Amino acid sequence: MAFSERVSRLKSSLIREILAAAQRPEVMSFAGGLPAEAMLPRVEWADMPLAMGQYGMSEGEPALREALAAEARALGVPCEASQVLIVSGSQQTLDLAAKLYIDKGTEILLEAPTYLAALQIFQLFGADCITVPLQADGPDLVAMRQRLEQHKPAFAYLIPTFQNPSAVRYSEARRDAVAALLDEFDVTLIEDEPYRELNFDGGSATPIVSRLKKASWIYTGTMSKTLLPGLRVGYLIATPDLFPHLLRLKQSADLHTNRMGQWQALQWIGTEHYRNHLAELRDFYRVRRDAFEAALQEHFSDLADWNSPQGGLFFWLTLKTPLDTRSLLKPALAQDVAFMPGEPFFADPDANPGYLRLNFSHIDPQRLGEGLKRLAAVVRQAQVAEAA
Amino acid sequence: MAFSERVSRLKSSLIREILAAAQRPEVMSFAGGLPAEAMLPRVEWADMPLAMGQYGMSEGEPALREALAAEARALGVPCEASQVLIVSGSQQTLDLAAKLYIDKGTEILLEAPTYLAALQIFQLFGADCITVPLQADGPDLVAMRQRLEQHKPAFAYLIPTFQNPSAVRYSEARRDAVAALLDEFDVTLIEDEPYRELNFDGGSATPIVSRLKKASWIYTGTMSKTLLPGLRVGYLIATPDLFPHLLRLKQSADLHTNRMGQWQALQWIGTEHYRNHLAELRDFYRVRRDAFEAALQEHFSDLADWNSPQGGLFFWLTLKTPLDTRSLLKPALAQDVAFMPGEPFFADPDANPGYLRLNFSHIDPQRLGEGLKRLAAVVRQAQVAEAA
Repeated sequence: MAFSERVSRLKSSLIREILAAAQRPEVMSFAGGLPAEAMLPRVEWADMPLAMGQYGMSEGEPALREALAAEARALGVPCEASQVLIVSGSQQTLDLAAKLYIDKGTEILLEAPTYLAALQIFQLFGADCITVPLQADGPDLVAMRQRLEQHKPAFAYLIPTFQNPSAVRYSEARRDAVAALLDEFDVTLIEDEPYRELNFDGGSATPIVSRLKKASWIYTGTMSKTLLPGLRVGYLIATPDLFPHLLRLKQSADLHTNRMGQWQALQWIGTEHYRNHLAELRDFYRVRRDAFEAALQEHFSDLADWNSPQGGLFFWLTLKTPLDTRSLLKPALAQDVAFMPGEPFFADPDANPGYLRLNFSHIDPQRLGEGLKRLAAVVRQAQVAEAA
Repeated sequence: MAFSERVSRLKSSLIREILAAAQRPEVMSFAGGLPAEAMLPRVEWADMPLAMGQYGMSEGEPALREALAAEARALGVPCEASQVLIVSGSQQTLDLAAKLYIDKGTEILLEAPTYLAALQIFQLFGADCITVPLQADGPDLVAMRQRLEQHKPAFAYLIPTFQNPSAVRYSEARRDAVAALLDEFDVTLIEDEPYRELNFDGGSATPIVSRLKKASWIYTGTMSKTLLPGLRVGYLIATPDLFPHLLRLKQSADLHTNRMGQWQALQWIGTEHYRNHLAELRDFYRVRRDAFEAALQEHFSDLADWNSPQGGLFFWLTLKTPLDTRSLLKPALAQDVAFMPGEPFFADPDANPGYLRLNFSHIDPQRLGEGLKRLAAVVRQAQVAEAA
């Protein structure tokens, strides 16, 4: 059986296995990144034109592209509708970017930690991952300059607003500094913003792409975290030098994104009822975050440190006594608790033990305390065993 | 700007340009492969559960996988639901197959001609295309054996039932012989069947994958030609040795296929109203084919030869005096007529002049005669100019 060379890098997905285990109804899961079922909005389909059933344009629905460009301009991103490409969920943007840039051995610049599914697809295509450590308010700028002096990455992939997994939001100053560095070294930026609208403190730092003066960029967003993930509708906005290539790659990937999801997205973007829905989402998740943090204080304050996330869906815990958190999975699942180990979010997992990603949006509040209590017991037991 | 090596093979798509030109309302287009608008069925969305808005499984909806496996078994394809992967239109199957198999220089076996968008994505990934000429009832078996003796293709990609572009349907004997050859040389088969149900003479040769005894296979189908292309729902069925890899590649491509389209497909597959719809479709397209053939007889009988298609959406014309049909595009569009030149359907376009692909399903019957008359005049004029 002769598969491609890249298939040898197709890892058995830890996430898949964890999420499969987390399907059991008795499992208290902190593992996934699912929106809360209770906050899926009721949507209407009755008015959708029959013509949405016909083939559509690879670029996406013109009216939706216009609406998304207007939203992006309101955020300070200079763009026209002609730069907007509708994709089948923002995961597809990563696939298109990998195809556009990555040969075996191509250097790319990533945050450490970074989004696991991005790491997987970039590595599948053979990327050589150069990483910059994240600090509380953005990447380590000294390290970033050093990397850019020593390497010539094809692009930098950054998640500056409530990053999955770390929940880090870059400060204004870091955004400016990162933009200046990318301009100085002329490195293309891929800025991934699925969580921008899930914001609990009203902060609104503009995207880094809006601060670039010279470098090319791809800005990506999605309907999955704020409307309905099942629609599989995301979008990218790209500088005109990149757009035609991305469009052809989109066409060869799946012709175009499903039109029902695009039509539904258009019923919401830029409307009063979408703004109301977003306000409800933020309130709902803020309450869940606060309850989660209170339970964390009770069960984990002697075991781990964390920053309170100002947006997004995750707490990122740093164990006071590091250990390989992948080894906690089996005992946790035996206690009907699921979580995401931190190691797979690093290009070099073995060198980065001792982090846990805990989702706070999906767990039943009634079971939150019991779940964290059990997880803390698993951590304690592993640390005792390791010390022995 | 450092793109990947593969981007240098990303051709400016002739199809895109033709289809864009064909958008002008005054253009009589024989170029696309669109279902007739009049035959898009009315679909209901009112009963769709809200839960379809949540993230779904990468494999696809369990009930849809079951229904498709049952349909495939009824065709003689030995499979379980666990072998069915729902994809975002069958174009995505080609993307997943390219990722699974193709490195730069990987040999693959194709029909000549073959589906243009398959050729494009396989070549994008760097495939070295080995081709077998198509005859009226299937591939040239002598040539096919010779290719298999001289090469070791990673897979054979075949469209045995009403191929796009040639409309060829393999005979029973050719299906058996091709299966035996693939078994003998242990070459994986990718069998693409978008047009199986668009059948005008009631023939029902079973898929080649159902005749294999040893070789691995991927069988692909879609809702796009018989229900609604805008849903972007297709599927593949793969042997168990291939399935886990395809699943992981699907997950990294776009997580999962949109669930509204999957839910809608499930409302139709295997039902009485779907069977009725298919019967209406066949009647409608048969009438269009007959009208088209009558107009062809009137305008093209001195210019070209063709076989009457027993299914699918296309006539494939062989000019009696070959010329590069790409050179006809500009004068045809100047006459407000669009068509697909035959050359791009071949791995070696320049060596295969003199074919035209004409879609018969989409053109307004009122304008059919005028369109073919103008196209014939363009061909005649080019032949006169060439002879001069």
